[in-house]
Amino acid sequence: MNTQCWIGMPVEQLPTPALVVDIEKLDRNLATMADYLARVKTNIRPHAKTHKTPAIGHRQMRAGAVGLCCATVGEAEVMAYSGIPEVMIANEVVDPLSVRRAVNLARQARVLMIVDDPQNVRDIGATARQYGATVDVLVDLDVGLDRCGARSLEALVALAQEVERTKGLRLRGVFGYEGQVQFIADRQERTAKGQDSNARLVRAAKELSGLGMNIEIVSGAGTGTYDIAGEFPGITEIQAGSYIFMDGTYQKLGLPFEQSLTVLATVVSRPSADLAVFDVGLKGISPERFNPSVQGCGAGAIEVKSLSEEHSVTRLSGAAAPKPGDKLHFVPSHCCTTVNLYDSMFAVRQGRVEAIWPVAARRA
Amino acid sequence: MNTQCWIGMPVEQLPTPALVVDIEKLDRNLATMADYLARVKTNIRPHAKTHKTPAIGHRQMRAGAVGLCCATVGEAEVMAYSGIPEVMIANEVVDPLSVRRAVNLARQARVLMIVDDPQNVRDIGATARQYGATVDVLVDLDVGLDRCGARSLEALVALAQEVERTKGLRLRGVFGYEGQVQFIADRQERTAKGQDSNARLVRAAKELSGLGMNIEIVSGAGTGTYDIAGEFPGITEIQAGSYIFMDGTYQKLGLPFEQSLTVLATVVSRPSADLAVFDVGLKGISPERFNPSVQGCGAGAIEVKSLSEEHSVTRLSGAAAPKPGDKLHFVPSHCCTTVNLYDSMFAVRQGRVEAIWPVAARRA
Repeated sequence: MNTQCWIGMPVEQLPTPALVVDIEKLDRNLATMADYLARVKTNIRPHAKTHKTPAIGHRQMRAGAVGLCCATVGEAEVMAYSGIPEVMIANEVVDPLSVRRAVNLARQARVLMIVDDPQNVRDIGATARQYGATVDVLVDLDVGLDRCGARSLEALVALAQEVERTKGLRLRGVFGYEGQVQFIADRQERTAKGQDSNARLVRAAKELSGLGMNIEIVSGAGTGTYDIAGEFPGITEIQAGSYIFMDGTYQKLGLPFEQSLTVLATVVSRPSADLAVFDVGLKGISPERFNPSVQGCGAGAIEVKSLSEEHSVTRLSGAAAPKPGDKLHFVPSHCCTTVNLYDSMFAVRQGRVEAIWPVAARRA
Repeated sequence: MNTQCWIGMPVEQLPTPALVVDIEKLDRNLATMADYLARVKTNIRPHAKTHKTPAIGHRQMRAGAVGLCCATVGEAEVMAYSGIPEVMIANEVVDPLSVRRAVNLARQARVLMIVDDPQNVRDIGATARQYGATVDVLVDLDVGLDRCGARSLEALVALAQEVERTKGLRLRGVFGYEGQVQFIADRQERTAKGQDSNARLVRAAKELSGLGMNIEIVSGAGTGTYDIAGEFPGITEIQAGSYIFMDGTYQKLGLPFEQSLTVLATVVSRPSADLAVFDVGLKGISPERFNPSVQGCGAGAIEVKSLSEEHSVTRLSGAAAPKPGDKLHFVPSHCCTTVNLYDSMFAVRQGRVEAIWPVAARRA
């Protein structure tokens, strides 16, 4: 369906479920982050996995980003071809086809790849030489997430040396994502653990620099740690993504960003006095971490009890009595996995659709 | 990306994560269901929400289905326009725009709608008269799921009477989905509870018939109850969907269907002796209910420990030692929410891609 016909319409008239972003809140989030980072003199390379939307990526570039992060080669292609000049693929790329795509993309835009395996370094280098490309590389250090990344400083040094001796590659820095710290509710504990991860990353960067290596970029942090890493000496840039939308999980941390992303849904059944069933389910909102919350139910409260594929069953309390046909906004617990369910999002200003932005990198 | 270039290639060469369906297993599942239903003389109207794929819907029609079920108006449009002659929208449709779409679709194909609210009946009828369409309607009875549907026989009778007196609508039967019974592990308990739901539905159907109403269709059941409802006297058709693919949840019930759906993923990191990280995460496989399992790891075992957006972190045991670049198949715990993440699926026969089927009703 050509959804552009909805431009100019009141948000409440949209067909549901609809992914909605409030442009003014989004822009305030961009400004809040930019102001903070200007003050602490740290760069941002926002994670595009959150939105997968070039229209938002360019808004982030205009707000001062040094480039974008991407989760996959496909995301990087979409962003680069939309005009983003520098993309970091913030995950290991190993499959030969994917390596070939990433290397060829490096002839279209500046591409930074991350590595944690010497054979992978040699493979990327061989591919780069085959196609006459030069690929920028960061070495990936595990800073406590226990996912990818070198597990020791020795392994990281060996990896960086492998990059340095591999023609076609250019060592640019170190990468370490403290994912395990993002959602720690206690601010003091989050700060202490974030600083510990940052310290491991900066120590590694200094070790490599001390060996005469080129370490311009020291990259870490998400939305939950942006202002821990942002002012940690030696971290040069942060990779936060969710700050533009926020979600139920990050909201609990009391960060200075606004909830700009919601899913609009319609009441389709009121089978009993205390139940309302909405037309959004697992295929329209991610219940990752916990169930979504419902906004704007007046004097009463509406609590999501369960989600099935196309339904939210909610329990009503107080004066809440939505009728079949009423539309309300749901806030997801995780913005990234919710956006991934849609091909486009409705960008709304003061209750009216101003633009419909393609989520062009979904499934890319 | 035009994915058709992959036709004829070995499955292991596909870019990952890839949604893969084994055609031979799919066809055996279709045959198993068709053979059973021919024996008990019950119809099937398979649920297209599972696959959202016209190529599979037509395979189900060729295997004897009387039509398809759809979860949304958009799914019904996609299926009808692909040539499926009769579609049931197995959820309440309330929003005026959606009602208008469903009613207009009824001029393009036979459309069955379900209702649980008298005002909604009047609205659909008014819309049908406005467009000169006739819409077939089933009244929805809650048979224990506690989601949509009339909560009492009295309410159901009143609803059916409303349908009968509304011009533009034609009462065709009763609908009741015993979703609460599908995953009960104990066969005896599942049978008892399934029969209880079926009995409530058939009793309601008889009540309406006794009042002189036209009740041709008595529709219920999912994959977990197909052979309970299938042989329950008075149930005329079943709505099972997952039987064509199966998944981790249904596999535990010991049903006679094969696991035809997997997600192929690549090892992207082996950061330590006991860990392997694959390039499939929450954006490529649904962890609804429980984490996916990993097939074909030889003498060892690979257990999915955690999923993030683009990663599965797995723990290795025994002789399992996949290298970076190795590809293995993951089995999702829920097929429907996994398929919904993809725009197309690779249909494979004996290890080679035979077709690439668009998941044309995704987001429809």
